[in-house]
Amino acid sequence: MTEIRATTPVSHTQVTLDDAFWTPRQRINRESTLAAIYGKLRDTGRLAALHGEYDPAVVARGVGGGNIVVLFWDSDVAKWIEAACVSLATHPDPALEAQVDAVIALIGQGQQSDGYLNSWFGFVEPGKRWTNLRDWHELYDAGHLIEAAVAHYQATGKRSLVDILARYIDHISATFGPGEGQRRGYCGHPEIELALIRLSQATGETRYLDLARYFVNERGSQPHYYDQEAIARGEDPKQFWARNYEYNQSHLPVREQTEVVGHAVRAAYLYSAMADLAAVDGDAELLAAGRRLWTHLTTRRMYVMGGIGSSKHNEGFTNDYDLPNDSAYAETCAAIALIFWAQRLLQIDLDRRYADVLELALYNAVLSGVSADGKSFFYDNPLASTGGHHRQDWFACPCCPPNLARLIAGLGGYLYTQNDDTVIAHLYAQGTTRLRVAGQDLTLRQTTTYPWDGVVTFTLKVATPTTFDLALRLPGWCRAPRLNVNGEVIALDAAVNGYIHLRRAWTDGDTVTLDLPMAAERVYAHPAVASDVARVAVRRGPIVYCFEQVDQSAPLTRSVLPTDSALTSRFEPDLLGGVVVVEAQGAALSERGWADTLYRTAKPEREACRLRAIPYAAWDNRAAGAMTVWLPEG
Amino acid sequence: MTEIRATTPVSHTQVTLDDAFWTPRQRINRESTLAAIYGKLRDTGRLAALHGEYDPAVVARGVGGGNIVVLFWDSDVAKWIEAACVSLATHPDPALEAQVDAVIALIGQGQQSDGYLNSWFGFVEPGKRWTNLRDWHELYDAGHLIEAAVAHYQATGKRSLVDILARYIDHISATFGPGEGQRRGYCGHPEIELALIRLSQATGETRYLDLARYFVNERGSQPHYYDQEAIARGEDPKQFWARNYEYNQSHLPVREQTEVVGHAVRAAYLYSAMADLAAVDGDAELLAAGRRLWTHLTTRRMYVMGGIGSSKHNEGFTNDYDLPNDSAYAETCAAIALIFWAQRLLQIDLDRRYADVLELALYNAVLSGVSADGKSFFYDNPLASTGGHHRQDWFACPCCPPNLARLIAGLGGYLYTQNDDTVIAHLYAQGTTRLRVAGQDLTLRQTTTYPWDGVVTFTLKVATPTTFDLALRLPGWCRAPRLNVNGEVIALDAAVNGYIHLRRAWTDGDTVTLDLPMAAERVYAHPAVASDVARVAVRRGPIVYCFEQVDQSAPLTRSVLPTDSALTSRFEPDLLGGVVVVEAQGAALSERGWADTLYRTAKPEREACRLRAIPYAAWDNRAAGAMTVWLPEG
Repeated sequence: MTEIRATTPVSHTQVTLDDAFWTPRQRINRESTLAAIYGKLRDTGRLAALHGEYDPAVVARGVGGGNIVVLFWDSDVAKWIEAACVSLATHPDPALEAQVDAVIALIGQGQQSDGYLNSWFGFVEPGKRWTNLRDWHELYDAGHLIEAAVAHYQATGKRSLVDILARYIDHISATFGPGEGQRRGYCGHPEIELALIRLSQATGETRYLDLARYFVNERGSQPHYYDQEAIARGEDPKQFWARNYEYNQSHLPVREQTEVVGHAVRAAYLYSAMADLAAVDGDAELLAAGRRLWTHLTTRRMYVMGGIGSSKHNEGFTNDYDLPNDSAYAETCAAIALIFWAQRLLQIDLDRRYADVLELALYNAVLSGVSADGKSFFYDNPLASTGGHHRQDWFACPCCPPNLARLIAGLGGYLYTQNDDTVIAHLYAQGTTRLRVAGQDLTLRQTTTYPWDGVVTFTLKVATPTTFDLALRLPGWCRAPRLNVNGEVIALDAAVNGYIHLRRAWTDGDTVTLDLPMAAERVYAHPAVASDVARVAVRRGPIVYCFEQVDQSAPLTRSVLPTDSALTSRFEPDLLGGVVVVEAQGAALSERGWADTLYRTAKPEREACRLRAIPYAAWDNRAAGAMTVWLPEG
Repeated sequence: MTEIRATTPVSHTQVTLDDAFWTPRQRINRESTLAAIYGKLRDTGRLAALHGEYDPAVVARGVGGGNIVVLFWDSDVAKWIEAACVSLATHPDPALEAQVDAVIALIGQGQQSDGYLNSWFGFVEPGKRWTNLRDWHELYDAGHLIEAAVAHYQATGKRSLVDILARYIDHISATFGPGEGQRRGYCGHPEIELALIRLSQATGETRYLDLARYFVNERGSQPHYYDQEAIARGEDPKQFWARNYEYNQSHLPVREQTEVVGHAVRAAYLYSAMADLAAVDGDAELLAAGRRLWTHLTTRRMYVMGGIGSSKHNEGFTNDYDLPNDSAYAETCAAIALIFWAQRLLQIDLDRRYADVLELALYNAVLSGVSADGKSFFYDNPLASTGGHHRQDWFACPCCPPNLARLIAGLGGYLYTQNDDTVIAHLYAQGTTRLRVAGQDLTLRQTTTYPWDGVVTFTLKVATPTTFDLALRLPGWCRAPRLNVNGEVIALDAAVNGYIHLRRAWTDGDTVTLDLPMAAERVYAHPAVASDVARVAVRRGPIVYCFEQVDQSAPLTRSVLPTDSALTSRFEPDLLGGVVVVEAQGAALSERGWADTLYRTAKPEREACRLRAIPYAAWDNRAAGAMTVWLPEG
């Protein structure tokens, strides 16, 4: 089998953003979010735990004491290291680098002599090591540490963390596998698979890829490892608290899976690794499974703003079209994981169906996860609230904040993919990118005020005329995109799967102008989505809107968007850092004549009201109050 | 202070129903429900527990072991005794009476030498007696045993259970009160208060009334008993699991309470006792509190079908207008308690606002609690379901089944109230009632097919012309009632608070015909009820309707009731024991053109569908499927 990846990402280190939308967010991420998370890691004891120093109260409550979140502590630290290193790669900061290296030193001190590395089972309950892969996240922690090591190595050139992890992976490789004396296990929370593939790509070591391939392929095979493991613990496998192996996507071998099920973050991390393996191995069966799962997710189980996993009970998927709004879980991490998955499939299949969802999740379900000041976070992202749902500065399980931080720091890496003679623009943001294509250096500048306006101008700098394919994404949300090259209009009917390919000998100073007209539009859900029947949402370009009470002239909960009311939009520079708002004349049910009446046969009167919508991701940054994405229409 | 009750109920023993609606339900209650409950009481160990025989597994799990439901066991038995005795009073059944007496014998065996009577604290954890009135329901159990004793005495003339309870009440009276060496406690779950008043009325013993008055008046006084009691247990009162004393209505002295709060059954049992006391004592302040609470409940916090208590978290009230449909708790017991309260206020204030709600709760929120075969029950009564909510044959806390059984057995007692020269008809059902008024015997026959048709004919039998006031309720749901006496039309503009008073010298054979035209009507909720905005419900006479999937031509969740669609109704003799169904042409969102699309900008097409509604109380008696009371309109 041979590699089938059509293009690979242009690293964020090659992309310098000076974008009105993203640059301030990256600055806040760097200056506020990273520091806030570090403070919490320290204050909650996660750093001290790395080398075995625990508050006795934490020890008393943890694992045997019932609290399982201590098992994720290493991953929280790891994701912060990764986020910091991704940032360091574009924004050097000696103080931050020293902080990272100090934490890595603690990790080194915590490594056991046999290479094993886990703060809880290394120090507190060593006898329970590897006894519950189903629930206890050791390999998940390892995965995040591996990703941190890759980022650290790539940002600083230092091998300190990579070397620590190499020793740990040797231990893991010796422990797990199909060989004599090995355990045929795999982690209940996928993550190490995609991490090992990243490490293999960063180091060229194929044995990491082999281990990832083993974990992916072993998953869901019979006899089921989690059954055997439970029996070995003296438990009845049928008494699994999550009830079924759909929860961790081990109900079937991955190639046989047809529906996205279970815990949403686990799912999308697994599917990401499957896409990576399909790409590297040219594994058509695995790719077919990934495409099938993608179609199922995006046509049956995804929120309009790109959130996935509708239920808090399993932090994941339920049934087709079951997308409740007020109780939507839509975990921030799950939307991030969806981006990981989308980007991987996009490297194989150049099809905007992946990039459109990537963009949707990014601007909406992911960005809603962090406050304007970068210091508080949503774990779950409901699409409606009565006013009681607010971002928090930390969580018992704080997986989302550092996940957000690493994504935002590395955002530049999602703009382009390329191969030897092709450069593909997937996302639009102002900045300058330096890359090599067709054997030449190319400097590609994007000028745009996206996502508020759809005009994007590319200016090319090349030393000598160079022939390559510059492909641009024509987003699915845009009805009538327009394109010109050096002022000459280019027809777009030759676009393939939503990308227009411009193959020519490019010369210095060439400009390409893509115009993606954006209008505020009404969006409707499939009739089987019971929660959205007779309701309407508003979208403009890649941005999904919501209505917050603070912007309305009437109580939001009694407001309706009349069918014939026009939507207007306007950039508001002083609102929420500068956003386009969408307005419409609405109708609000009137209290006139109700007095002390709770029910009556006369229909409530309506009075005109002003409805104003803001980008969903920006909600809960002002006065608390009701919020909804879907308004009754009629 | 003097008694201010205007009328008192005509006992169910004076009313012989031969009603097409109620008689079959009473028969099923007698023949199926009572036996089913008895079997469960026996099989779950509740009968053996009465004299201290426990399954060790129950003992291991109970109270100290974490499971509190064992503390309600006595009340479950007591309510079954009461239901059986209420039935025996109109339908003698020696086998059932023997069963009752055998259970009472077990209760007698379980009574402690000092009179104390509680199966758990009498035998299993005697040291914990009276140490947690806030949570542990001892006085609540006593209350239900007292009500059982009253019913047993009234049905059979036997004093066995009354005597047992008299000894127990002596013990309680000695223990609790404002005197030297007494505890100033009262029960976390009101119930004993109304029970003591019933016992006082049945026996003429005013000391029972005095104890009830003490419990009601002591409630919510400072220093707070539950604070002191918690401290005595070595607990921090602030760590109360229910968070606040609104939960058990002890946050304020009862006279200062202005809003219905907390656990709904506790609330309505307390308010019932308050109404009784206000009536007996002529206590204007207490009456004012009751009227105020009634107004608050019925204008802010009651479901359209008479259910109360919208949240499962506290089994009770939340905020004004917070009436979610799919998660509605609306416990069956709470609707029953609402009937108790309504009937008590109605004895003081002859105002249909109480009787209308009594009727609404009875035909809808209460009757939904039991299946057509009388053998399975709803605890919570949501107003919408995706198809997963079903009646069960029992519950860990089975308070609702025997509560329903006693209400249905005694239904005749809710039809009339009277005083020396007044007879008032509150509910309409076919049957014959014998009573004395103005010193004469009166036989009053109602002929009707209510609630399916609103024509009600009263025929009076008197030995001699007798002058008294016959008052009839003109239900608030009826727009244009008509009345004639012996064929002579009577104007209804003299009605007072919804009752028309016919004072005349009645002669034998006089007939009064009340015609209450019923049409299926659309009902709207106050605009502040967010869950019902842009939605409509259907009501016809006293019956609130719902839509069940099994009756629809299109998927219910995507159906809409167009604004201009006519509602038609028709009696269906073979459906659900004979019900009036309501039909309308509806519109269902079509899947046409959606294929694998989850969101789109084109509004879904609509196609015509048939909508059919059945009485809410009758749902979940056929194929499982979606159900809703409130349909989108437009």
